[in-house]
Amino acid sequence: MKQALGSLTVRAERQGLVEITGKIAAWLAGQKVSDGLLTVFIRHTSASLLIQENVDPEVQRDLEAFLMKLVPESDTAYEHDAEGPDDMPAHIKGALTQTHLGIPVSSGRLMLGRYQGIFLFEHRRSPRPREIVLHLVGE
Amino acid sequence: MKQALGSLTVRAERQGLVEITGKIAAWLAGQKVSDGLLTVFIRHTSASLLIQENVDPEVQRDLEAFLMKLVPESDTAYEHDAEGPDDMPAHIKGALTQTHLGIPVSSGRLMLGRYQGIFLFEHRRSPRPREIVLHLVGE
Amino acid sequence: MKQALGSLTVRAERQGLVEITGKIAAWLAGQKVSDGLLTVFIRHTSASLLIQENVDPEVQRDLEAFLMKLVPESDTAYEHDAEGPDDMPAHIKGALTQTHLGIPVSSGRLMLGRYQGIFLFEHRRSPRPREIVLHLVGE
Repeated sequence: MKQALGSLTVRAERQGLVEITGKIAAWLAGQKVSDGLLTVFIRHTSASLLIQENVDPEVQRDLEAFLMKLVPESDTAYEHDAEGPDDMPAHIKGALTQTHLGIPVSSGRLMLGRYQGIFLFEHRRSPRPREIVLHLVGE
Repeated sequence: MKQALGSLTVRAERQGLVEITGKIAAWLAGQKVSDGLLTVFIRHTSASLLIQENVDPEVQRDLEAFLMKLVPESDTAYEHDAEGPDDMPAHIKGALTQTHLGIPVSSGRLMLGRYQGIFLFEHRRSPRPREIVLHLVGE
Repeated sequence: MKQALGSLTVRAERQGLVEITGKIAAWLAGQKVSDGLLTVFIRHTSASLLIQENVDPEVQRDLEAFLMKLVPESDTAYEHDAEGPDDMPAHIKGALTQTHLGIPVSSGRLMLGRYQGIFLFEHRRSPRPREIVLHLVGE
């Protein structure tokens, strides 16, 4: 059994979902581990991670729209608005999705389903570089 | 330290929560690991995983009803409706719950609390076989 | 590669978020593992775990208020109310946040971002002792 630690920095082009499956698979391909567990961790609270359908872009748009309606940026009820109206909604959307993902690996490949992709979910209107840590344990 | 990979295929009888703790515990019992970490991963985005109270069936019904109200299948705002009105809500409910779970194992047993069970959460009206991957690392 | 299992018991002073980063870091400091993966697991379904901003207390208050509004304790629609009006909302809020967290460890330190803290999220009005299991794998 062995392990590896790595990191990626990703900057979304706009608020919303951006697929990072390819970047993660590329890192995995460079490790000498065939079977194991990959953990993906985001070091931020106003952006998050999600595994979601990656075939039909409508799914991503509908999901973004649902969360925008559930956690409106026009809500004046937030105390925390120092960085603008998208600041507190970003933290809430982060809390409702994931800070980390765990994905089994077999024969050097992520065991994602046929329609699953790994996404960075940028919740701020002005995307910034996001640091994502990768940990792999296996053999 | 060693590891094991396995899989289960589960088909819910109806839309909603179905407990799979027993199936997972049975797989675990066949592994030669006493202490470690079990990861449960679902290879789908219109069904998800959840650890929830498994004693009182009312809890499961209330949770299903809450999510059905939060993410209504009657909502005509979704672009993605090719597979019917429960299609996009299924993806959203999946995003709000879990694609993977991590559960410590001690003395060959899942370290679940007294009232915790592991559930497959089927979000489609027509349940289909769902593939669940299991990864165990420990010794 | 080696592993360690441990546990913490934490009792919140009130319903809501209580930071436990320090307690977890203290346990980690006692382990002989420099790099690896820490899993934090809560053995309850009416309290949960969350990684969230730990600098500005407004963020925590806004998040608590958002969930209180999303899952109102005044809702009479719940079947499960044996333990009071906060009982079923507690299970729902638990389902919408996390039962477990996975955090990479490097050089003996949690790889949390600069503004990230680990929180116990107590959803019951009368906080009770909550058992949290820790698993560490690494070397």
